[in-house]
Amino acid sequence: MVADGNGEQERLARVGLSRVIEPGDLAALKAFDGLSAQEIWDRLHHNSPEYERWSTRLATVDPHRDLERATAAGARFVIPGDDEWPEQVDILYEAGQLSRRAGVPFGLWVRGRANLRHAVSRAVAMVGSRACSSYGEHVAAELSSGLADSGVTIVSGGAYGIDAAAHRGALSVAGLTIAVLACGVDVSYPKRNAALLSRIAEDGLVVAELPPGCAPTKLRFLARNRLIAAIAQGTVVIEAAIRSGALNTAGWAEQCGRTVLAVPGPVTSRMSAGSHLLVRERNAVLATNVADIIEATSPFGTGLTAPPRAPQTITDTLSPDVQRTLDAVPVHNPAPAARIAATAGLDLTTTESCLQTLATMTLITQTPTGWRLPPTTPPPTPSTP
Amino acid sequence: MVADGNGEQERLARVGLSRVIEPGDLAALKAFDGLSAQEIWDRLHHNSPEYERWSTRLATVDPHRDLERATAAGARFVIPGDDEWPEQVDILYEAGQLSRRAGVPFGLWVRGRANLRHAVSRAVAMVGSRACSSYGEHVAAELSSGLADSGVTIVSGGAYGIDAAAHRGALSVAGLTIAVLACGVDVSYPKRNAALLSRIAEDGLVVAELPPGCAPTKLRFLARNRLIAAIAQGTVVIEAAIRSGALNTAGWAEQCGRTVLAVPGPVTSRMSAGSHLLVRERNAVLATNVADIIEATSPFGTGLTAPPRAPQTITDTLSPDVQRTLDAVPVHNPAPAARIAATAGLDLTTTESCLQTLATMTLITQTPTGWRLPPTTPPPTPSTP
Repeated sequence: MVADGNGEQERLARVGLSRVIEPGDLAALKAFDGLSAQEIWDRLHHNSPEYERWSTRLATVDPHRDLERATAAGARFVIPGDDEWPEQVDILYEAGQLSRRAGVPFGLWVRGRANLRHAVSRAVAMVGSRACSSYGEHVAAELSSGLADSGVTIVSGGAYGIDAAAHRGALSVAGLTIAVLACGVDVSYPKRNAALLSRIAEDGLVVAELPPGCAPTKLRFLARNRLIAAIAQGTVVIEAAIRSGALNTAGWAEQCGRTVLAVPGPVTSRMSAGSHLLVRERNAVLATNVADIIEATSPFGTGLTAPPRAPQTITDTLSPDVQRTLDAVPVHNPAPAARIAATAGLDLTTTESCLQTLATMTLITQTPTGWRLPPTTPPPTPSTP
Repeated sequence: MVADGNGEQERLARVGLSRVIEPGDLAALKAFDGLSAQEIWDRLHHNSPEYERWSTRLATVDPHRDLERATAAGARFVIPGDDEWPEQVDILYEAGQLSRRAGVPFGLWVRGRANLRHAVSRAVAMVGSRACSSYGEHVAAELSSGLADSGVTIVSGGAYGIDAAAHRGALSVAGLTIAVLACGVDVSYPKRNAALLSRIAEDGLVVAELPPGCAPTKLRFLARNRLIAAIAQGTVVIEAAIRSGALNTAGWAEQCGRTVLAVPGPVTSRMSAGSHLLVRERNAVLATNVADIIEATSPFGTGLTAPPRAPQTITDTLSPDVQRTLDAVPVHNPAPAARIAATAGLDLTTTESCLQTLATMTLITQTPTGWRLPPTTPPPTPSTP
């Protein structure tokens, strides 16, 4: 599809419908399935009692005024068929056959200079608790800046806590981030994130399904979550209590066939319980670093990372006989070469030569009564992050 | 098999072999496969160069003296066929066909009053880093005491860190715990755990494959790990670096067809990297609490636990219309009943009645310009465990 493939009437109808029909209204999805926006718009004007629940709102709707208001706020209205339309959102049509609050939005209000479709061609959603711990906030910022640095757009909901940390992480490395709101793109909600949202609109994108001026409701938050899940290739849950918006978003990602990842945390933290639940019960991928997330959200067979390995140690370089001798040297009480030879299953001459090699490498210590491993320092004092 | 189903000669041969042949010596497993202990013992005395690597040790071996020494240390020697023999260890015969350091021990030296076979009929191994964090130590103690309280025997290696915390957790609730050592059961290694090991020998069991007086070597630690893994129904890794003895034990558990569980921790902690690796790359079960571990180590279909749920909140009890109304009330900027009705898709009369109900429950607030959700307190200051 190409830009401006849509007629003016269809676009105006979609503007109007975005104000008349609540996001993800299942009754509307059912009543109007298969119709163009203009056909729906026309039917609502027929004054049929069948459509009354929506048509009562028509009196207050003026698509031209909404478009002007958007322009004044630096926003545009993007609809299916536009060059900027993110096609992955179309998956919500199928989800809409099944679930409340699904359905493809009539359009998306977009604030910011970037091209929305380009921005989400490589995008990861990062969601979690508003009341997150400092651990969660730290990890969100680290993962987000690392991903953004690798060219991944970070999608989140503009809320306090994990959302804000994720947006900030991307901004901190001049990466791209998108805030998908449950209110109008010109509404600063939550209030204390007003400066952050302005910054995102400046350097990234602020996106909403609801027209300018709309306030958030719980229903709108739930519907908004489906957009976050659908628009990204994967959703990373960082910290989430058992019942939380982040798990709702993860559920949408599952329904949309997107990868769900969860960052583990201390089992003693209530905040990580939702992440652990996702891994245990819902097959989420455990995410511990940027590479894990890139691998899981890349097309099959690309973005693969090697499993973590400890750095090679000097003992990795030993010949088999020397290694075998080392393995047979007592940890503590010294043993003579003959005893070590017997333990190692090597002859005495070979063993003695190996012991000399090991001594030169200071891997073993000679004492008056034989050989032993060097004394180790006691385990370090425990430390936690 | 019944107690004393073994001849005295077979038992003495096994005592001798436990000193002559290193635990899990693959060459010995191959050379003597299918032979009784007495047959092996006899062959070693033939002075054949084929067996020289083992027979050179014969001069210093005296089975009668080893048995006396064990008795003096309060220990006994348990062999296959004895009433107390833990039959799950026999799985190591098959593993011995494949791997270095496998093979069924010739016998087990056992200190303590409990019956070894009974003690491991319901047993979980708990292993992890010696240099663990305070988080790991705390979680090991909590899980261990909880499992022990449910009648599960805790098996570990008697080392510093996670091992010690696991043993102590079980002892703290008068539960059963077993230390499987890489040295003789009469050797206090590591030295600073001497009091703990005495206590375990008193109230639980100290078990070793090596005869009394033997010192640990790296080879013996690796071989010991196979016993820990085989004797328990599952192995829980609490904190482990990428290259660690705990992951070696987990590998043995996999080879023995036992369940491997891993406790997650902060992704910022190097100590939890091994646990996360097990979940990501090796299909270990994520363990966050005692119930998770009991479920995963119970016979199929038993020990099941319900997935974690948040406590029911008052809003769970609302009727569908009231719930729908609540979902349509703005979070912040008040809206009149008519607007809420339109958002909720309900008629005005129903909406007004629902709003009254919600107001009575103090779930919404009335203002001069309409209804909104009550102001929330800002998110609490971040806190981590």
